[in-house]
Amino acid sequence: MHSHGAHTIHRDHHHFGWDNTNPPVLIVAPGTTVSFECMEASCGVLTADSTVVDLARMQPGKVNPVTGPIHVDGAEPGDALKITVEGFAPSGFGWTANIPGFGLLADQFPDPALHIWKYDAATLQPALFGRHARVPLRPFAGTMGVAPAAPGRHSVVPPRRVGGNLDIRDLSAGTVLYLPVEVAGAMFSVGDTHAAQGDGEVCGTAIESPMTTTLTFDLVKDAQLAMPRFTTPGPVTRHLDGAGYEVTTGVGPDLWQGARAALSGMIDLLVRQHGMLAVEAYMLCSVCGDLRVSEIVDAPNWVVSFYFPRIVFE
Amino acid sequence: MHSHGAHTIHRDHHHFGWDNTNPPVLIVAPGTTVSFECMEASCGVLTADSTVVDLARMQPGKVNPVTGPIHVDGAEPGDALKITVEGFAPSGFGWTANIPGFGLLADQFPDPALHIWKYDAATLQPALFGRHARVPLRPFAGTMGVAPAAPGRHSVVPPRRVGGNLDIRDLSAGTVLYLPVEVAGAMFSVGDTHAAQGDGEVCGTAIESPMTTTLTFDLVKDAQLAMPRFTTPGPVTRHLDGAGYEVTTGVGPDLWQGARAALSGMIDLLVRQHGMLAVEAYMLCSVCGDLRVSEIVDAPNWVVSFYFPRIVFE
Repeated sequence: MHSHGAHTIHRDHHHFGWDNTNPPVLIVAPGTTVSFECMEASCGVLTADSTVVDLARMQPGKVNPVTGPIHVDGAEPGDALKITVEGFAPSGFGWTANIPGFGLLADQFPDPALHIWKYDAATLQPALFGRHARVPLRPFAGTMGVAPAAPGRHSVVPPRRVGGNLDIRDLSAGTVLYLPVEVAGAMFSVGDTHAAQGDGEVCGTAIESPMTTTLTFDLVKDAQLAMPRFTTPGPVTRHLDGAGYEVTTGVGPDLWQGARAALSGMIDLLVRQHGMLAVEAYMLCSVCGDLRVSEIVDAPNWVVSFYFPRIVFE
Repeated sequence: MHSHGAHTIHRDHHHFGWDNTNPPVLIVAPGTTVSFECMEASCGVLTADSTVVDLARMQPGKVNPVTGPIHVDGAEPGDALKITVEGFAPSGFGWTANIPGFGLLADQFPDPALHIWKYDAATLQPALFGRHARVPLRPFAGTMGVAPAAPGRHSVVPPRRVGGNLDIRDLSAGTVLYLPVEVAGAMFSVGDTHAAQGDGEVCGTAIESPMTTTLTFDLVKDAQLAMPRFTTPGPVTRHLDGAGYEVTTGVGPDLWQGARAALSGMIDLLVRQHGMLAVEAYMLCSVCGDLRVSEIVDAPNWVVSFYFPRIVFE
């Protein structure tokens, strides 16, 4: 399913944060396919043998390494970099954590938690979580971005107009992503590969998993894109939706608080129905549940819904 | 596909807004199935022959009529009213409007616009919009609610903890909705039926369409629900997702502004790719495009995405 590109960028060629003065590790012509070895977000601190105490060993300035940058010949500010996601070679290892201070319910979950995943990298069969839950997998890269025009080094954590840590779970194989170019050569990097994630990435982490990512680069001259956009070649939820959903809602005037209410309702429901710990439900929601805006026009109250796929428990 | 309930509540039995002193039009035991004739949101002002000038005839206090209320025997505060959506008998007529001052981009679309839909009520084949677009249909009731405990009359427009104008497009046939009961008998009403709507209902209206709605009522005693929740029996987007999606994004620290940016990006894309008017694209987005929260944890910037189903143009 996954064939390598003409070039492979080794994982040693990674950087932290965005800086348009980072020298390119490769210069390619439009039309070139490149494979990138991507580390997971802890940059190698966490392994299949890690326990929760190892979370404290992660270094704030050394998380979410991205592999690159590559310079695309002819890319200029105002163009769009067109990135076709050819595929992934996953590793079979992953982790999901509740990292104190990070996540949509950080105030309610102050204690660290870690779940280590083992999955079949060849078949990508749903991965076991606890005794009963099986999470369908669909690899993607959480971070794909080009260098911003603004000088200096910029944190990798927040996504930007030029992409970066978008954490959009549908940027999977076959998808075509368009990013606004702000500097000559675009200076593209990729990392933060995930084996699965729900819309929202609500606990702050997905199934964080090292994997090789293969991408083809093209240019759309003078595209004048305001924000990233993408095209998916087909359905995006068929691996999840076969048994329908349990859905909780948050109704009120603030979308962020509505999202928190909907998520809290789902955690309560999962704890009650399946006897798991609240922090387990929180992490499970992050890897397979979806935040949707059901209505955003009936002022002053909006409805945010959290969709949990029932197939996970079948 | 649609069989009527043991009782039918005629459309004349409608009310505007929520007031727990509204007398019940029917008292039923748990387990009863009831059909409700639901008017569309203009309360009969708009018809298949209407033009945009008729929008001005809608009266602010007389929109979104709901049929009911019915009293469910034994329902008490703290219970949940369990509503099984048995099905709909649609009418074949619908409308979508841009109503000045209403909608996610109200500031950008100050002029009224109206689209009249005609669809096959028996087959529910996708409905034509303009020359090329065909919108898949999936009927649901935009407004299902019970009376709030707070005294007085409350506007029907904003949804509440007790439901109401939730405008959740997945409350279609087969879905089971749970609403928190706040007064004896629950005092349930339903209206605002839609032939199709996307997540967000971004222009403020869906395919507003009169139809009969058949529901079965049960009670979950002492459920102590914080907010409405529901269960879907199966997939919710298979009528839309076959050809994948065009997706635009809004990246920034405010979800509402992110939603606006993503929607604006999609309107620009549809105008450019399909030569439609911006207000047409806005209304089309409202009836079939979806707002999703892609990530809500990579502070300070969240990603809101607008998903437009490509099958609409195939």
